[in-house]
Amino acid sequence: MRYAVLGTGEVGRTLGGRLVELGYEVTLGSRSKDNPVGLEWATAAGGRAHAGTFAEAAAAAEVVVNAVGGQVALDALRSAGADHLDGKVVVDVCNPLAFEDGQLRLDPVESDSVAERIQRAFPDARVVKALNTVNCQVMVDPGRVPGEHNLFVCGEDADAKRQVTELLGEFGWPAERVLDLGGIRSARGMEMLLPLWLGLFEKFGHGDFNFEVRRGR
Amino acid sequence: MRYAVLGTGEVGRTLGGRLVELGYEVTLGSRSKDNPVGLEWATAAGGRAHAGTFAEAAAAAEVVVNAVGGQVALDALRSAGADHLDGKVVVDVCNPLAFEDGQLRLDPVESDSVAERIQRAFPDARVVKALNTVNCQVMVDPGRVPGEHNLFVCGEDADAKRQVTELLGEFGWPAERVLDLGGIRSARGMEMLLPLWLGLFEKFGHGDFNFEVRRGR
Repeated sequence: MRYAVLGTGEVGRTLGGRLVELGYEVTLGSRSKDNPVGLEWATAAGGRAHAGTFAEAAAAAEVVVNAVGGQVALDALRSAGADHLDGKVVVDVCNPLAFEDGQLRLDPVESDSVAERIQRAFPDARVVKALNTVNCQVMVDPGRVPGEHNLFVCGEDADAKRQVTELLGEFGWPAERVLDLGGIRSARGMEMLLPLWLGLFEKFGHGDFNFEVRRGR
Repeated sequence: MRYAVLGTGEVGRTLGGRLVELGYEVTLGSRSKDNPVGLEWATAAGGRAHAGTFAEAAAAAEVVVNAVGGQVALDALRSAGADHLDGKVVVDVCNPLAFEDGQLRLDPVESDSVAERIQRAFPDARVVKALNTVNCQVMVDPGRVPGEHNLFVCGEDADAKRQVTELLGEFGWPAERVLDLGGIRSARGMEMLLPLWLGLFEKFGHGDFNFEVRRGR
């Protein structure tokens, strides 16, 4: 399986690095072909790691991971090109964080979500929202946090969700800890968790935490 | 300590009943003095249970619990009267749920919260957001859910938060499981947890669940 990871920020580099470790071919995509961060990452991460434009990354891949910020996600995916997304699993890990007057805001929120926007803009892509509820260190190393803490997935395509759940298993998340919330609309709730997450991040002073859903029956 | 519980819905009756069990005088407040649900509750719940208008309930109480729906919270508190709220702890347990075109919506959301609106409307009340992240059975009986699952509180008044945390202790929540998120603005994150909560409620088919925050350090 060949992966495109769109975004050369910490999330993209961390996910890309883990995918390379797992033995996959990975292209880290960015706006420009000569993005020094992408090139440096590819050199450091070894022979299966490549850097390229969003379009080059997506064209080469069977699975596309959207790891750019929520505010630029649609632009990045448009640059990647609908032709390079159609029929593919697109894992959307981003949060709709925006800065406005020095404040962190969510946009879109509540009546829409980034993941839904992506699915609407690319109706032939098989969008799965996943991983946005933990920081990127925990994404690829759940053992940083004790306990049977959970991830959530949602999306319209059951097979795509199964595929993503398997990938999460390779990251260290047993399937029973990945809670399927149904259709892509449930991305709203996943993205709206962010303000509480940020409050806890501020309280603890680090991102090594996660939520474990405890059930009485 | 005498409590007012505003709202005769399931949340209000459940919280009121638990407070009576704990030995407190409780007035369940509603719009009208002769609300049959309130009167019936007061009769069934015993000698320390009373029913009355929002204003009667708040006037008689040292602590006011807002257990009406988020869409009518400000109206209910205005009926209770600022004079009957000033200086008192107001525990806001509501969620800003609204129905719109047959859809559940949150209003306000993200740039504001019900708890902040209450604090702004009644600047001399000591508003604490609490308990809105679990269903009312779990609120008063955390043992329905296994594990060291958490509650959140926030508000501007540290002493009020301590008082509410003590009350939560009487409900069965040890203080170390009550996470203080800071000022009342953090109510946004607490209220925005609702869509994810509703998704899990739908998935599980019941409300006997809660989130345990697991920390790596």
